[in-house]
Amino acid sequence: MTDVTSYIDAHLDEALKQLRDYVALPSVAAQDASIAETAAFVKAMLESVGATAEVLSKEAPGNPVVLGELAGTSSKTLLLYNHYDVQPAEPFDLWTSPPFEVRREGDVLYGRGISDNKGHLVSRLLAIRALQAVLPGKDGALPVTIKFLVEGDEEVGSPKLDEFVAQHRVRLAADVALHEGGGVNASGRPLVSLGVKGILAVQLVARTAKRDSHSSYGATVPNAAWRLVWALATLKDANERVRIPGFYDAVRPATEQEEAFLRELPHEEETTRQNLGVRDFVCGVRGEAYSRRMIFEPTCTINGIVSGYTGEGKKTVLPAEAMAKLDFRLVPDQDPGDIAEKLRRHLDAEGFRDVEIAASDGEFPARSDADHPFVEVVRSTAREVYGKEPVIYPSGAGTQPLHPMMHHLGVPMASAGIGHPDSRAHAPDENIVLPNFVLGTKHVAAIIERLGAG
Amino acid sequence: MTDVTSYIDAHLDEALKQLRDYVALPSVAAQDASIAETAAFVKAMLESVGATAEVLSKEAPGNPVVLGELAGTSSKTLLLYNHYDVQPAEPFDLWTSPPFEVRREGDVLYGRGISDNKGHLVSRLLAIRALQAVLPGKDGALPVTIKFLVEGDEEVGSPKLDEFVAQHRVRLAADVALHEGGGVNASGRPLVSLGVKGILAVQLVARTAKRDSHSSYGATVPNAAWRLVWALATLKDANERVRIPGFYDAVRPATEQEEAFLRELPHEEETTRQNLGVRDFVCGVRGEAYSRRMIFEPTCTINGIVSGYTGEGKKTVLPAEAMAKLDFRLVPDQDPGDIAEKLRRHLDAEGFRDVEIAASDGEFPARSDADHPFVEVVRSTAREVYGKEPVIYPSGAGTQPLHPMMHHLGVPMASAGIGHPDSRAHAPDENIVLPNFVLGTKHVAAIIERLGAG
Repeated sequence: MTDVTSYIDAHLDEALKQLRDYVALPSVAAQDASIAETAAFVKAMLESVGATAEVLSKEAPGNPVVLGELAGTSSKTLLLYNHYDVQPAEPFDLWTSPPFEVRREGDVLYGRGISDNKGHLVSRLLAIRALQAVLPGKDGALPVTIKFLVEGDEEVGSPKLDEFVAQHRVRLAADVALHEGGGVNASGRPLVSLGVKGILAVQLVARTAKRDSHSSYGATVPNAAWRLVWALATLKDANERVRIPGFYDAVRPATEQEEAFLRELPHEEETTRQNLGVRDFVCGVRGEAYSRRMIFEPTCTINGIVSGYTGEGKKTVLPAEAMAKLDFRLVPDQDPGDIAEKLRRHLDAEGFRDVEIAASDGEFPARSDADHPFVEVVRSTAREVYGKEPVIYPSGAGTQPLHPMMHHLGVPMASAGIGHPDSRAHAPDENIVLPNFVLGTKHVAAIIERLGAG
Repeated sequence: MTDVTSYIDAHLDEALKQLRDYVALPSVAAQDASIAETAAFVKAMLESVGATAEVLSKEAPGNPVVLGELAGTSSKTLLLYNHYDVQPAEPFDLWTSPPFEVRREGDVLYGRGISDNKGHLVSRLLAIRALQAVLPGKDGALPVTIKFLVEGDEEVGSPKLDEFVAQHRVRLAADVALHEGGGVNASGRPLVSLGVKGILAVQLVARTAKRDSHSSYGATVPNAAWRLVWALATLKDANERVRIPGFYDAVRPATEQEEAFLRELPHEEETTRQNLGVRDFVCGVRGEAYSRRMIFEPTCTINGIVSGYTGEGKKTVLPAEAMAKLDFRLVPDQDPGDIAEKLRRHLDAEGFRDVEIAASDGEFPARSDADHPFVEVVRSTAREVYGKEPVIYPSGAGTQPLHPMMHHLGVPMASAGIGHPDSRAHAPDENIVLPNFVLGTKHVAAIIERLGAG
């Protein structure tokens, strides 16, 4: 690794120049801005390391996907998943400097997408170039084949990615894969996440009349707010147990290895508790019980609810319409479509046929086999590169589109990357820190080298 | 009554001129506009029929009250309750013409407060002048003493009226009283209401954290929207039964006479059902069961609820704060203060100490004794004047400040006035219809005459 390290250090400025140009493209998926131009830029970046690359269209409403392949000296294949789209930069006035012009302040670089997810791809390409320069391969060939899948609408839920991966499963076939990113925790320990929760997002609407009425009709006219409140109250009880019949049926029990990783996790929830100003977590959990819920427990969360008069003072009104948005974070092997159906059946059975599921959108959960040898590759290389014991999460609590790759390609996926706890992904002043950029790059290089040796 | 009728017809234009000047004063209680000027105007109107009158201040935050007295040839006393304040006229652009300039179109007169409640006082004064002109009394004296109580902030809940009436109970002492108004239903039958529901309005607030968090924390961070939904769901079940212990304890059973009036009520709920586009009323009630709920059943109504993200699309947020506004319509002898205490105890007992009652405001219910001879006076005179069978409501479903008078003065109160179903009180293009103005005036004159004869 010494030569790799030297190469990375010597070529860091080149990589940062590339990153600067990449961030300058305002590839906001939700705004369709410079999407085609950014896809072409990515294709050129992949080609610059010797990969073949192609921009392919995804079924509507998806943005184009860039696929690439860099043949190695073995057929052992690592798939790198990334995305070139970014979150909207609004509100602009909360940024210290223009979001699409990279600003450097000491070791910190700011810009929209610099961490999520453009910096990760640039870092991975630098790792590849470093290996090409120093490995004793045939014409600089790597010991493993690298495939790239860089999609363009991760920030809007990766529509049609599942169909795309299924369609190109042979071309994308791999042995192992890396998520879009990764990074370190507040103590600088590298984080390795082996999965994500899925999600089912729904909007529930109750309508009881054509228009609001005076609340003196409260004795007789049905109230949409009450209908919705009663319907919601049937979904989850105050002990946080989801009451939809069959909701937990498909939940896969934690394996012994997952339990072992769980026990090794640091307990950082007290910081979260203080930051949020929360008195107690739900069910009073702390420590391992907290981690267990975050990793293994599916959720049912009200994101928002509104009905009737919500301004200052009183208004004696009886609302005709009420709306709530909810998301369910799902764990393997829950299926968002199946949960949506069970939700409908449950509402019907509880007497709420009148409560409409007005919108429904889902992503599958995905979790790698914690016993897969790839997990040990990522873990041991992280330990060596960072000089600290990695923290292994059997799954994160959030949602990313890993299921299409894990399911259709059968690959385990792990995270490795350049992020840090204050990266402010999705927020103003998104940033990366250079020492983390270098460490993440070295880690990816080490993973590739180890895979080639294995 | 023939002479009274002739007098009223002959002096109608004078009364309408007075009403025009009265409406021109924009006495919006909530805006403190021309309140003092209007109180002085009312005092002068009362003096113009020979009454002694005085403007008295009410304890803060109340507006001044105008008291008046017109001695009769007997000590038998009728109290007339009215208010000189009006609802705000906003939104102005929904008015066909300026709200504080009376506009006449055929038999319809438009203006803010023309029905609620300025027209009623002008009508009552015209009735008094007609009787003074035609009755064979001593110097035009009426056979009964008339007392006036004209308050200035009914439209903002009559703050401190209870204390005011208690303080002036001797000066206000009366045998019987008329509400602020009354009128006819869609069939032109005179409506006589003998009471009102009370109200307790509250605002409930749940706070679980200092700020919203990402919904991936749904497994551990307490959600204010869930806390509030669960708390609300304990208040009333889907069968419309309020679950607060002791909520129904003080509910006074209907008397035989009230039941008799109930059975005689016309069934007009089908029109309401169609206007509102409601499929079924709560508990499937129709006909007498509908009327029974509207008159005798206390309510618990969500007026509004809001928490988290309620805009377009999805937002994976976990809300830190949630708020709901509710009103409880109360029936005799429920006490809003007692119900507020029971609500607090109930929330505590159900595990919702964290749900704050952030605002609480109430008015007592009030219902006249349906067997009181005054009811028959109002009913029989209405039958004679209108030539149609009156409709007697033991109580309305809404709330007006009748409790201070009924409770402190011990008077029965009934409605008699000039309104009609499309008066649009509180709405743009508030109006009265002249034939109803004349009928209501004659009805009040007939009530005074009959009281004097009794």
